[in-house]
Formats: sequence, C-alpha cells, structure tokens
Amino acid sequence: MNVHENATTKDWISSRLPQIAGRLEQGAPIGGGLDLQARDEMYDIFDDIMAVLFPGYYSHRFESDERTVDALADKLFSISARLGERLYMAFSYHCRFDADGCGGCDCEERAARALIEMIESLPEIRAMLVDDISAALDGDPAAKFFDEVVLSYPCVEAIAAHRVAHRLYSIGVPIIPRMLSERAHSRTGIDIHPGARIGPRFFIDHGTGVVIGETCRIGGNVKIYQGVTLGATSPFDKDGRPRSGQKRHPDIEDDVIIYANATILGGGTVIGKGAVIGGNTWITKSVAPGAHVYNGPKGEHYP
Amino acid sequence: MNVHENATTKDWISSRLPQIAGRLEQGAPIGGGLDLQARDEMYDIFDDIMAVLFPGYYSHRFESDERTVDALADKLFSISARLGERLYMAFSYHCRFDADGCGGCDCEERAARALIEMIESLPEIRAMLVDDISAALDGDPAAKFFDEVVLSYPCVEAIAAHRVAHRLYSIGVPIIPRMLSERAHSRTGIDIHPGARIGPRFFIDHGTGVVIGETCRIGGNVKIYQGVTLGATSPFDKDGRPRSGQKRHPDIEDDVIIYANATILGGGTVIGKGAVIGGNTWITKSVAPGAHVYNGPKGEHYP
Amino acid sequence: MNVHENATTKDWISSRLPQIAGRLEQGAPIGGGLDLQARDEMYDIFDDIMAVLFPGYYSHRFESDERTVDALADKLFSISARLGERLYMAFSYHCRFDADGCGGCDCEERAARALIEMIESLPEIRAMLVDDISAALDGDPAAKFFDEVVLSYPCVEAIAAHRVAHRLYSIGVPIIPRMLSERAHSRTGIDIHPGARIGPRFFIDHGTGVVIGETCRIGGNVKIYQGVTLGATSPFDKDGRPRSGQKRHPDIEDDVIIYANATILGGGTVIGKGAVIGGNTWITKSVAPGAHVYNGPKGEHYP
Repeated sequence: MNVHENATTKDWISSRLPQIAGRLEQGAPIGGGLDLQARDEMYDIFDDIMAVLFPGYYSHRFESDERTVDALADKLFSISARLGERLYMAFSYHCRFDADGCGGCDCEERAARALIEMIESLPEIRAMLVDDISAALDGDPAAKFFDEVVLSYPCVEAIAAHRVAHRLYSIGVPIIPRMLSERAHSRTGIDIHPGARIGPRFFIDHGTGVVIGETCRIGGNVKIYQGVTLGATSPFDKDGRPRSGQKRHPDIEDDVIIYANATILGGGTVIGKGAVIGGNTWITKSVAPGAHVYNGPKGEHYP
Repeated sequence: MNVHENATTKDWISSRLPQIAGRLEQGAPIGGGLDLQARDEMYDIFDDIMAVLFPGYYSHRFESDERTVDALADKLFSISARLGERLYMAFSYHCRFDADGCGGCDCEERAARALIEMIESLPEIRAMLVDDISAALDGDPAAKFFDEVVLSYPCVEAIAAHRVAHRLYSIGVPIIPRMLSERAHSRTGIDIHPGARIGPRFFIDHGTGVVIGETCRIGGNVKIYQGVTLGATSPFDKDGRPRSGQKRHPDIEDDVIIYANATILGGGTVIGKGAVIGGNTWITKSVAPGAHVYNGPKGEHYP
Repeated sequence: MNVHENATTKDWISSRLPQIAGRLEQGAPIGGGLDLQARDEMYDIFDDIMAVLFPGYYSHRFESDERTVDALADKLFSISARLGERLYMAFSYHCRFDADGCGGCDCEERAARALIEMIESLPEIRAMLVDDISAALDGDPAAKFFDEVVLSYPCVEAIAAHRVAHRLYSIGVPIIPRMLSERAHSRTGIDIHPGARIGPRFFIDHGTGVVIGETCRIGGNVKIYQGVTLGATSPFDKDGRPRSGQKRHPDIEDDVIIYANATILGGGTVIGKGAVIGGNTWITKSVAPGAHVYNGPKGEHYP
C-alpha cells in the first residue's frame, strides 16, 4: 500500500508540495543559533556534571572503571570545553537579541568567567545534594537506602538540576538554566524556576505538580509534597502587564512542612519557621512561626 | 554469579519455562496490526512535521544545513509517504474492528484525502503556533526570548501536538490523534484530548496536571495554569453508561484566565468572555462575562 | 570560539581542574554496586517482560515475526538469566547495607526462588492486565479500541509496572520494585508505591498527579481520576519519627469511584463499597458503603 502513489495523491504531490514548502519557508522561525541539537548537547553536559558529582552512579559515563582523580579531571576538562561553548553561545545570543542588550560586552570573557565560577562550585553543590538525599532518607518512612534514593527518587534529579541551574542563573547566564529546569520538569513533574533560592536539606516527596516560582526563597530543612504551588497572586499588574523583576513569590522559612496540593501565593507572604501547612490549603497571607494551618472540617486539627 | 544456572533454577528452567510460554501464547492479545513500533514510527513522523514547521530549531532532522524550499519539499515528501501508510493502517484498522464499521469504504482513498488535508493545513498550523508562542512571551513575566519559549516551555510541545492531533481528529482519523496527544501528555503533564477545539493565542503556564476534555471549546487569548481541569461532571449517565458523543465538557470564551488547580466541569458550563477564575475553585455552573470568581477567605478578592 | 582555551580559562584549567577533581574524588558517593547502568538494564528486562505479556504490541523486541511458544520460551529464558543477576545483586546489596541485615542468608538461593516466583506469576499478571484494559474500555466514553488503550493510555503502563513491581515487593525483593514504579511515575505522572495492594479491573483516567501510598488496599472495579492522593495523614509520629511499617494509607473497597484531585488520608480510613467521592474533596474519616461525598456549593449534589 503506497498511499502517496495513488491517483489522488500523485498529482497533488507533484503540484502542491513545492508550493506548501514555499509557504513554510517564508516566515519560518529562524532562531538565533539555538536549536534542539544545542539543547541536547547541553543535556549531555549536564549528565556529565552529574557523573563527576556522583561518579559511583554514572560509571557508564567514564571510559574506564577507575574513578580516580585523573579520571575526574579528564571528565572536568571535557565538561569545561563543551560548557564553555554553550555559555558563549548563550551570552552572545543574549547580546544580539535582548532589548536591554549589553551593547559591546566581551561575551567570550563573560563565558570564561561563568565557566570558572560554575566548575569551581561543583564540590559545594555535591555537598548540598548529599545533604538533600540525607533529608529524603530521614523524611520518608518508605526510604531505606542512600542508593535507592539516588536511583529512584524524582526529587534527586529535580533538585540536582535546580542547584546547577540556579548557579548558572545567579551568574547571569541566559536561557540555559531554564533548559535544565524544564528537562527535569518533564521527567519528574517538578517545576522549579532556576531563580528560586533553596536552602540545605530540601526534600520533595512524590513531587508531581510542584511549582516553585522565580523569586521564592526557601530556608533549610523544608519538606514539601506533591502538587504544592509556591506562586504569584497575579503575574500581572493593574494595567495587565507582566510583573517582571519584582518579588512575586513567597518566602518559606526553616523547618517548614507543606502537605500535598497546598497553594501559597504572593511576594509578601512569609511562612514562619517551623510552621506546618496542611494539604489543599490556600494561603495568600503570612503564617506565624510554629503555626499549624489546616483545611479539614471545622474544629478538627491537621495533621 | 549465574542465578539461572544454579541447582534450584536449572531444573525449573528446563521443565517449566516452555509451559509458562505456552500459557502466555494462549490468549495473548494479538492486536490488529498496531504495535509500539508503529507508534514510534508515528512519533518520528510527528517530529519531522515539527521540523518543517520550525526548521531553524530542528536542523538536525535535515540532511544539509540549508533550509531551502527544496529541502522543505523533500522533507514534506518523506512525511507524506510515511504518514500515508499510517493513515491507511489506522482507517483500515477502524473498518475491521469498529462495531460501527464502515462496511466497504475505500480506506486507501480516505487515507489519501486525509493526508492531503493534513499537509495542506501545515502553513496555517504554523501560523497558529507562532501566535501561541507570542502569547506565552506576552503572558509570562519570566519569558524573555522567542527561542527560549520554543526550546523550554512545555506548553509549546503540548499545543503543537494538539493542533496537529486535532486536525487529524477533525478529519476522522482514528487512534493516531490520541497517540500524539498522549505522547505530549507523558512529556509535559498536559493532557489535551484531540477533540478539544482551541482558539488562537492559547497559553498554558507550568502545565503539569492540566486536563482538557474531548468536547471543550476554548476561545482566543485564553490563559490557564497548572492543574486546571476542564472536565465532565460525570462520564456516566443515570444508568451508569458512558456518555459518548455528547457535549460533556465546558466552553471557555475569549480572554479568560484560569488560575492553578481550578476545576471547571460540565457540558453546559460556559465561562464568559474576560472572566477570571481563581485558583483551586470548583465550578459546575456558568460564569458571567467579566466576572471574577475566587476561593479565598470570605470577603477577600482574588486575584 | 574555544572558551576553554582563552587567556582567562587556560591557566585556570591547568592549575585548578586537578584540585577540583581531587575534592570531588574525596567523599564521592560510591554506591553499593548499584548504578544507572544497572537501573537501565532493569528497565530493559521490564520491557521484555511486557513483550512476553503483550507479544502483539512489542513485536520489535522479538527476533522473528513469529510469536510462537518457542519464541516466547526463548524470551523467557533471556529474561530469567538477566533478572536472576539483578535479583541476586539486590538481595546481596540489602544484606551488606541494611541495618536489619540478614546475617548470613544465602542470597543466591533467595534470588533463585524470587526469580521462579516472579516468572511463574506472569500468566496471572497478564490476565489481570487484560481485565484492567477492559475496565478502561468500559469506563471511558472516549475509549474505542483495545489497541488504542494499550498503546496510548498512561494507566496501562503505570498499572503494568505496578503489578510486576508489587509481585517483586511481595517476595521481599529490595530496591528493584521502586525503580520500576518510579520509571512509570516519570512517564505517566502516576505514582503507585509497589507495596499497594490493588484488586482487579483497576482504571485510572488521565492520571497525572495520582499518588497511591505503600499500605493502601484497593478492591475490585475501582476507578480514579487525575490528582487523587491516597496518602498518610502524617508520615511522622508525635516524636517526629517516620512511621515505617505501620498501616498509614486508606482502604478503598469494591466499585468505588474517586473523582479528580480528591485527597483521602489515613491508615484507618475506609471508603465503603460503591461509594462515590467527589472531586477536590478532603477525606480523613471513613465513608459508608454507597455514600456520595461531594464538595460543591451547599445543597448541591455531585456528581
């Protein structure tokens, strides 16, 4: 069966396809040098970063079985060479297209400095991730082994991607941070904007549907469950214009627990240290430290 | 260590495996010629469709670097040849297995006409997608570049898959539309039934957990957030039978904003032009144009 | 452009990379022999298990087109050899690292017996999955064909992974069950703990955000929608310690329907036979058989 060779299609193909191609060629989104291949290359670099952070788990990404200092240095060199190119591409893209463009900055120099800052921070990022994994082990009755958490808890991938993406975001790298966070979002259902500032020992259980906005600040030892939104009351001001560059998302202090599907909104909203936010709650005002906010039938306490 | 060769397993393997294989062979779901390989081939065709729509972003799917009319025409020819086969397979599958089968229609001719209609609509679909991306740029304070949105906003993949799947659905193609929409669902958490009719400049932010039902109609310039359900009050009638073929899902008019985790249900429910639906609301009745419906503590307006 | 070779980076690379590598080598999480490659191998075995369960749909995983008893027996042999190794690795990992370690059990013998029990149960698991798919066909007005459900309903992948993972969990296999369930979670947004006991004819529509806890028991013919949580009221006791090994999650009896985003919590909570739980409800107490619990405006019944 060759549908494209039957009577109906045969004429159409020869007469119409070139015209349709012509229409598609006109006004095709061209892109500024960024494409899916560049994105895949960035994903690959991120996987290598994970390999130097957790060499025991990514042994297939090393050429030999030895996880020596030399093997790690070789891998770091390869990461640096490729990440340097991506950073240069992102900075020079930004300079060409941003309305607030740099107007003649030295993109290569910026890329070089960003590269150095990123690679220098890897030992610190690894220490944070090990703490995050310990928090998962302490916080989930079903978690038994460090390895099990690394290999099968979605929050590990999401938080690792975030800690790398956030560092790139803090340095001012455009576009790449969001690529990394959206890849983790696709695989875990956990959507953390690279701008969010998240303290040590952060644990997300289950995770599907979690959204953490760009200007959130989260303290240490915070635990959240699936479907939690830390968002903006409205992304638009009174005139209907997007509120870029403002504090739009809440602050969560140390030791807070936020149960499933709670929604906490607003740049002025602060959840005080040690507070517990019950599931399915809707919070647009600050909550005092140590308070328990619940949403059950009247008079009944949660949890 | 060869567990399958130790004393316990060795006898079992030779004595039992053939019997278990025999039991699995009996009554095995055979399928009507559709399998995962056919599905993967359909996914590959869809990726090529994205490549002709956004050639600058899918350059790795073209043989040369040139994005000329000829290169696009070659790609369209390849898409047509392969999509023609898939359409024929889907129509003839339907004719063999559907209780309401066609009874002697010419599946090849139907496939040919569907193919033509699909390919002819690509320039129009591209124009709609470019508008959708512009809406994302206008609607999200965190969005800065067209490229960034194309490469890292999950709604772009979800809406692109939907606009292609909906066209196939409208032509009456069975099975394939749902394959495309479920692939996007898997990767983005956004579940749009191919039957839903969606107007221009549609934007979904974050997106995880969004469900849009088969008989929804959505106007222009509508914006929705994560976890929004546009669903049926009940998929079953009083006798417990599925309500196929009825209008079961709501209508959303132009310029409506629906915040996170709102649930809007029912085939008779209409959200009027310009209305704003607050987060976590539960709506089973129509809302007047311009109304703001919120769910906060009493007396407090949202947003 | 070679950012890693410019003046700024060149010195840094030669002077600093080895030191950073040294810091990353110290204290690197080593893992107990489990890594991503082992996980990918386990994923591959699971795909082969799906191939013997649904040979018509996974024909690309067989060497020839024939789906004879011999071809199935060959595939079962290959599965047994590889799964045996994985089971041995998981058991011996557990014995080395678990605080409650076995203290000298025969891991090879345990792996052999687990392997036999798993493979012997495949015909029964297939029969259950065919029933699950029939339930989807009966329960969703949009579902038309058995093949369409197999190839594009996310609940099929999630429930298939669960029924295999639950069998491994019941045998006492560590780590592997959770790997399988989290892979399905990543691809479908449906998070079912391998410990959950789920009866026949189980259907999940849409599915994104569903969480089903470790100690849930679900009867026959139960239907649930996206965003439903069957969870624990609190995973911690009064002293803040995880409640491992207790009944923490609800029981759902036969013929129950639970609509989107309902949250049902607690180990003592029982949803009685034939009850209907409305969307967005918050349930922490048992519901009588046949009851309808809804969450709409006062006086209005749902559904």
